[in-house]
Amino acid sequence: MGAIAGTEYLNRINQLKNEVWLDGKKVEGPISEHTVFKGILQEKAALYDLQLNPEYTHDMTFLSPESGSRIGLSYMQPKSIEDLKKRRKAIELWARQSFGMMGRSPDYLNTVLMSFASSAGFLENKENCFPQNLTAFYKTAREKDLSFTHTFISPQVNRSQIYMENSKEPIALKVVDVKDDGIVVKGARLLATQGGLTDEVLVFSVGRFLFNEDEAFAFSIPSNTKGLRFICRDTFMGGPSRFDHPLSSRYEEIDSIVVFDHVLVPWDRVFYYNNGEVAEEFITQSSFHAYAKHQVITRQIVKTEFILGVAQLLVETIKVNDYQHIQEKIAEIMIGLETMRALREKAENHASPDEYGMMRPDVIPLNVAGVVFPKMYPRFTEIIQIMGASGMITLPTENAFHSGIRKDLDQYLQGATKSAEDRVKVFRLAWDLTMSSFGTRETQYERYFFGDPVRLASQLYKDFPKEPYVNTVSEFLHLKDQ
Amino acid sequence: MGAIAGTEYLNRINQLKNEVWLDGKKVEGPISEHTVFKGILQEKAALYDLQLNPEYTHDMTFLSPESGSRIGLSYMQPKSIEDLKKRRKAIELWARQSFGMMGRSPDYLNTVLMSFASSAGFLENKENCFPQNLTAFYKTAREKDLSFTHTFISPQVNRSQIYMENSKEPIALKVVDVKDDGIVVKGARLLATQGGLTDEVLVFSVGRFLFNEDEAFAFSIPSNTKGLRFICRDTFMGGPSRFDHPLSSRYEEIDSIVVFDHVLVPWDRVFYYNNGEVAEEFITQSSFHAYAKHQVITRQIVKTEFILGVAQLLVETIKVNDYQHIQEKIAEIMIGLETMRALREKAENHASPDEYGMMRPDVIPLNVAGVVFPKMYPRFTEIIQIMGASGMITLPTENAFHSGIRKDLDQYLQGATKSAEDRVKVFRLAWDLTMSSFGTRETQYERYFFGDPVRLASQLYKDFPKEPYVNTVSEFLHLKDQ
Amino acid sequence: MGAIAGTEYLNRINQLKNEVWLDGKKVEGPISEHTVFKGILQEKAALYDLQLNPEYTHDMTFLSPESGSRIGLSYMQPKSIEDLKKRRKAIELWARQSFGMMGRSPDYLNTVLMSFASSAGFLENKENCFPQNLTAFYKTAREKDLSFTHTFISPQVNRSQIYMENSKEPIALKVVDVKDDGIVVKGARLLATQGGLTDEVLVFSVGRFLFNEDEAFAFSIPSNTKGLRFICRDTFMGGPSRFDHPLSSRYEEIDSIVVFDHVLVPWDRVFYYNNGEVAEEFITQSSFHAYAKHQVITRQIVKTEFILGVAQLLVETIKVNDYQHIQEKIAEIMIGLETMRALREKAENHASPDEYGMMRPDVIPLNVAGVVFPKMYPRFTEIIQIMGASGMITLPTENAFHSGIRKDLDQYLQGATKSAEDRVKVFRLAWDLTMSSFGTRETQYERYFFGDPVRLASQLYKDFPKEPYVNTVSEFLHLKDQ
Amino acid sequence: MGAIAGTEYLNRINQLKNEVWLDGKKVEGPISEHTVFKGILQEKAALYDLQLNPEYTHDMTFLSPESGSRIGLSYMQPKSIEDLKKRRKAIELWARQSFGMMGRSPDYLNTVLMSFASSAGFLENKENCFPQNLTAFYKTAREKDLSFTHTFISPQVNRSQIYMENSKEPIALKVVDVKDDGIVVKGARLLATQGGLTDEVLVFSVGRFLFNEDEAFAFSIPSNTKGLRFICRDTFMGGPSRFDHPLSSRYEEIDSIVVFDHVLVPWDRVFYYNNGEVAEEFITQSSFHAYAKHQVITRQIVKTEFILGVAQLLVETIKVNDYQHIQEKIAEIMIGLETMRALREKAENHASPDEYGMMRPDVIPLNVAGVVFPKMYPRFTEIIQIMGASGMITLPTENAFHSGIRKDLDQYLQGATKSAEDRVKVFRLAWDLTMSSFGTRETQYERYFFGDPVRLASQLYKDFPKEPYVNTVSEFLHLKDQ
Repeated sequence: MGAIAGTEYLNRINQLKNEVWLDGKKVEGPISEHTVFKGILQEKAALYDLQLNPEYTHDMTFLSPESGSRIGLSYMQPKSIEDLKKRRKAIELWARQSFGMMGRSPDYLNTVLMSFASSAGFLENKENCFPQNLTAFYKTAREKDLSFTHTFISPQVNRSQIYMENSKEPIALKVVDVKDDGIVVKGARLLATQGGLTDEVLVFSVGRFLFNEDEAFAFSIPSNTKGLRFICRDTFMGGPSRFDHPLSSRYEEIDSIVVFDHVLVPWDRVFYYNNGEVAEEFITQSSFHAYAKHQVITRQIVKTEFILGVAQLLVETIKVNDYQHIQEKIAEIMIGLETMRALREKAENHASPDEYGMMRPDVIPLNVAGVVFPKMYPRFTEIIQIMGASGMITLPTENAFHSGIRKDLDQYLQGATKSAEDRVKVFRLAWDLTMSSFGTRETQYERYFFGDPVRLASQLYKDFPKEPYVNTVSEFLHLKDQ
Repeated sequence: MGAIAGTEYLNRINQLKNEVWLDGKKVEGPISEHTVFKGILQEKAALYDLQLNPEYTHDMTFLSPESGSRIGLSYMQPKSIEDLKKRRKAIELWARQSFGMMGRSPDYLNTVLMSFASSAGFLENKENCFPQNLTAFYKTAREKDLSFTHTFISPQVNRSQIYMENSKEPIALKVVDVKDDGIVVKGARLLATQGGLTDEVLVFSVGRFLFNEDEAFAFSIPSNTKGLRFICRDTFMGGPSRFDHPLSSRYEEIDSIVVFDHVLVPWDRVFYYNNGEVAEEFITQSSFHAYAKHQVITRQIVKTEFILGVAQLLVETIKVNDYQHIQEKIAEIMIGLETMRALREKAENHASPDEYGMMRPDVIPLNVAGVVFPKMYPRFTEIIQIMGASGMITLPTENAFHSGIRKDLDQYLQGATKSAEDRVKVFRLAWDLTMSSFGTRETQYERYFFGDPVRLASQLYKDFPKEPYVNTVSEFLHLKDQ
Repeated sequence: MGAIAGTEYLNRINQLKNEVWLDGKKVEGPISEHTVFKGILQEKAALYDLQLNPEYTHDMTFLSPESGSRIGLSYMQPKSIEDLKKRRKAIELWARQSFGMMGRSPDYLNTVLMSFASSAGFLENKENCFPQNLTAFYKTAREKDLSFTHTFISPQVNRSQIYMENSKEPIALKVVDVKDDGIVVKGARLLATQGGLTDEVLVFSVGRFLFNEDEAFAFSIPSNTKGLRFICRDTFMGGPSRFDHPLSSRYEEIDSIVVFDHVLVPWDRVFYYNNGEVAEEFITQSSFHAYAKHQVITRQIVKTEFILGVAQLLVETIKVNDYQHIQEKIAEIMIGLETMRALREKAENHASPDEYGMMRPDVIPLNVAGVVFPKMYPRFTEIIQIMGASGMITLPTENAFHSGIRKDLDQYLQGATKSAEDRVKVFRLAWDLTMSSFGTRETQYERYFFGDPVRLASQLYKDFPKEPYVNTVSEFLHLKDQ
Repeated sequence: MGAIAGTEYLNRINQLKNEVWLDGKKVEGPISEHTVFKGILQEKAALYDLQLNPEYTHDMTFLSPESGSRIGLSYMQPKSIEDLKKRRKAIELWARQSFGMMGRSPDYLNTVLMSFASSAGFLENKENCFPQNLTAFYKTAREKDLSFTHTFISPQVNRSQIYMENSKEPIALKVVDVKDDGIVVKGARLLATQGGLTDEVLVFSVGRFLFNEDEAFAFSIPSNTKGLRFICRDTFMGGPSRFDHPLSSRYEEIDSIVVFDHVLVPWDRVFYYNNGEVAEEFITQSSFHAYAKHQVITRQIVKTEFILGVAQLLVETIKVNDYQHIQEKIAEIMIGLETMRALREKAENHASPDEYGMMRPDVIPLNVAGVVFPKMYPRFTEIIQIMGASGMITLPTENAFHSGIRKDLDQYLQGATKSAEDRVKVFRLAWDLTMSSFGTRETQYERYFFGDPVRLASQLYKDFPKEPYVNTVSEFLHLKDQ
């Protein structure tokens, strides 16, 4: 076994026959042939192919310490700074393949599962905790190259400050029964990206658990488990034309509501349950944040490189690149890019081993990147919109270029250095990146990737060492009560 | 004749058989039945119906000084502040009917034509100018209730600081021949909103004319004039479902490139031509800016009211309205709304008669509104996106609510005070307003309504009286060289 | 009696011999001769003189309905929109005299007292309330043209969310005894501007009173009452030279901590005490906000005019007024100015009579102005700093121009259109307005004039009518549960 | 010789008897005893002492490759990344000693001179260039531990886009004569920080030289050269009390206009003259930007640490540190600090040898830091002002604490965790850092340290490699004309 190829991934997903609903219809037949899912599944398959591509296999895989098979690098547990950099290089290669547009490229959740398994020691000897299940499952997933989605957000019925769910039937997912063969869960979770397009669903809980310990658990189950339903949101794939929809025809990952209709989770898949304290602390004290952010920021850097390319190509196309205010705007993107890179590099260089023997990147620069990128990204899209001006609206379709009015288009839409067709391609890309339904979903996605920005800033404040700076000033002032 | 009803408008447009191209196909058959144009044409027809609705006819029409017919109020030439307020009330009623979402509601261009005609005196005794044509045509349009689009932007081949078109065939529209029966024009103009959906196209030139006086003219021609072609951009109508696409199914106005393939403009439709100085000055010195901005700002105020309603409804739906940071964000919309209203009111109250006997609103507060709204509007959409968070993505379709999974949706998507269906309606509206392809085009449209914001600010700086303030300070300092 | 002249004011203040402490020393002798207080007292005296100046007396005074004397207009209770506009004109004249730089020009607190008295009806038949004292004292103050400071902020020992004062001796001012001849108060209040420079101190309480009803009261006492001490902060008067410190030599008003050392407030000066509910509601339900904001915004408009003058004079001096980015920056000031004016005008035009027969300006546009100005003002100062660049640092003194190196200064500091001396005057003014200790205190003062901006926005949100907008949208969507 | 002690520095400066004018008076007697200059000179002396302090001498000095003496590390020419880090550590130690508040700590100009000398090869065989003078002078300065100011800005008579000086007598400094013993210069330069307080003045030219090659030169002369005059701006030292003016009593460096009244520059001090091309290119192509920015950013990082300490101490003092909006604000400072550190680290780690064998830090991350810090710094000061609120105004003096009202102050100004005295110390520091005349000059200084921010962004745009990103996008779109 070990690292798989694209066709193997597609076959596996087709054979699962997950229950996926789209626009009021249940998806029937091979999902990889479905108009809406075809694009993203092909792009994902291409990622898997890359790891078996002889040119990249060295950079994309490592040898399993147990089976000796070649394994995708995102499953590797890093023991040194070198390992960290190797992991990052592989993440980068996958991100480059999809220009950072795939939020749920397999490495994201491979990394999450790896981080959980690498901190399994935290669960030792705690009530309702099964670290051995976690470790074993990690190995299975690694050797089979399983793909994942995850889900951790409860439906937002009411987001006011004090709210207790009082529905007769569960809304938020909870444990409703504990049986000999496993726990039974019922309820829903929100917004699994690529829900229904992966082998497995990794389910865990975040937040605080006061009177709702039955919502505190972590497990993984196959996507075709009985009672599991994926209800997709409306698709943002504009259409199959690569000319008209260069991004959404490829990278529309879909998000779905995951319904658990009395789903039985077998014991060997339960990592912990009904333990609020563990659920709360495992997420913050495990290496989850460190490794997940390391992966995410690497993808976001590649996406920013793509945005820089689009922005610069756009201004060259209409020859506005000599205006100082245009240069200032593109410089903003450059500043964002260079800042993200510098923070990631600092996180790697200042990594240190954790209590479980893993090499963790320094989480402070990663947290800083996690606070600033959600503000940068919407600004990048705004910059592109502002620079593109009316060109972002003047968008004929591929069909128009294959019709009787092509001559008009060729004459009247020509660019300074580009044919009308190339020019329209550039603007349609800029539009699909920042203004199509796909593009705006990307913006919302990056804006909220790690959750509420105010809470993230607050967390950074708490984690950041403050005393040395306060002491310096107190000494300078000769304060009495320091 | 006089003010027409909706069906008359639809019939007229259908009979014109304008040459309209969409997605590589020429529109055939009655355009009012076309999937993509049906929505907007019906909404426009509803506006016309409103002026004949007995409940509104008094507020929507006035009696023609010549024919005695009832005429739509946006054609009225204001002679008093009262007239101005009457006009504004009628504009408001139409804007309310379409929630400010129709950028080219007929009153916009009726107002523009009225403003041109009201300043016809400016053209008297100037070379190649025909004020009598303008006056006569205004009367015709007024009595027949003609509808218009307009177009004044040349294709943006090259936007660098120094650029001279050197294409063999014209790209920017220009006069290529002067004949006994009129002038012949060739070339293209960009982005006529509702191009092909109106009786007439009003064509004029803005900017400076140095070596291109052949691009300096103003005229109006019927949309079905021989050689005139409207090439629509890709449609942003998401689909015909009012549930899924509450705005784009109704208000997608389409924008089009207008191609003039050796179009003959008969002399009686020419207002001026080949006169760069007049072309430059007529736009700034006529009452165009004053009346057009008065109309636009009135519509934008109504749109802002709608945005405020959406924002408040959204936060009530998920019960986040008690958070201080949410209140602060909605307060931003309120501040925008109240500011726009105060500026418009000041413009009306400080109106003064111009040299042609028309009552012009004070242009300074209108210019201020014209500078601030393009910055406010994108912020309003951002506020809605931020407050809606993941709810802006969790968007099932109408079909999903009529399928086997409705029970799941009802349970898991219910709102604090709303059923799942109502809640999804609210979020789909918020999404269509700010994140759909339709919504982002609206943002771009409002951002650039009056052109480059930096230039607008610069213009405001120049127009604003500065000396009194400088003198006060100079006197305070007893400067020698004041 | 009635409106007084400047000398009368100065004499009265000198005779009071208030206990004022500055830099560890008690002020002795006539305070109007004291280096630090001389400037501001002269400027204030000039305001009083203006109301007796025959050229202005008509605009600055009205006839007392009781005594028939001429009374300063800021004491007038407005019964009509005309009255409101008259009041505003008088306020404007005083503000112009001091370029909006005097935060505590007498009209501010005259207006506050007038607003209290005009809502005295609110206190009728409420526990520990004495509306008749308030009415009587208002008349006394009006007829004698008394001048005031006020104080309503308690010392900020601890601003965390839950805090109960547990000091043995009072810190926040409270009633410590109730006697036959009055109430006895002890404790301190913060930051009375011009504390010690006025006839009277108006003391009232704002906020919520849960377990501290002894802090809920309102009264007025003469500044020289036994036990009353004014402890000034460090002075921000840079020095007496009008050349070096054009603003701080004139308008440094000083702020002081007011200590009440067992101060007896006679019954006829008590308006209410020990009534938390009244203390909380009187401030929000009386006409206080409406009239006070009307005065403040009028002053701020005049100050903004002065800022515009300084900004424009500065850019002319170094000939940068043709740069587009400079024009954009000054346009920001113009936008602020025009917006504030439009909001005030709307507030006046939409005034309506309150339940006590007074004409109240519409408080919504005033509240909007109250939220936006504190954000505008710091931006204005930043704009001036940015435009002035290194010129804001190159600041020789008056003495330098009267020394052996004058020739060097004349040659090397000459401006494009100004002599070196005039140029330095302009820059020193820009500096004193935005960068001197005086200038930055002005910024802080305007930023916090009405308190915490987040709370102000929240209040605006609550007061603004929201239902009509929500209803419009609910109807548009045909929501079931509207 | 080699690295000197503080007293040696003070003696040298006193003996020079430079011609320094302050407030219209020529400084007489030992300048180190002058009220206004004493503070800064003592702080500077303390820096020199640090390099001879046995605890630090290893980190602060290196052995001269020629004399074998111990030399201050800022004079070291780095040949490896290790050298770069050593230099940085020394720079950091000096910056920590003065909390980053000394803009012209000796290492700044030592570094500049070192960078010039390290690129002397650029001047080889060019007209009017004397690389050997530069090299020799660098060695002299290094071995004698000379201290410097520099000056490169011409007086801003007229900053409009097209301006030619037409004064009879020079305003901008220029070569007016070339003699056997040197060149004679006349005119003025602006804003030498610490002008008159250093051994030498390094004079060079930046910008473009079209018709003014006589303004294109570089040289260094002793501060007491005949004809050299330093005219100080008004002092921003608030006073000598460390309690009242904790920063300005120590770190007011003064800025001065430098007048050159027919100053003879001996040939051995001339590096180049009358060569516009060299003057323009030497600044951009030498290692000047790389090394100078490396030093400046290191100092700014230390200053940001100090700001973070002040901010955190302030919020702890009044116990507002649990508010989320306060945490968000301090997080902004942390983000700034961590970003600057990451950028500097990246610059060091990606250093590469230049053509002259020196190890240059990567200039891209340094340029990014140079663009973002000038925007961060004013925001930091705003954050402190906003968090301090009215506390930034309630500022009694040291004398007040030693007077009869101390008991009042102790009672009414006590902080949550601090005595009144300590609390006032904290607020006076926050005020001196952000609101005193000294503090605002610091803001302006950091805002403009490397010149016009728009130009800096433009430069970053030009230097940043763009092609790879454009190519990636062009390939993705299969553009024809790539």
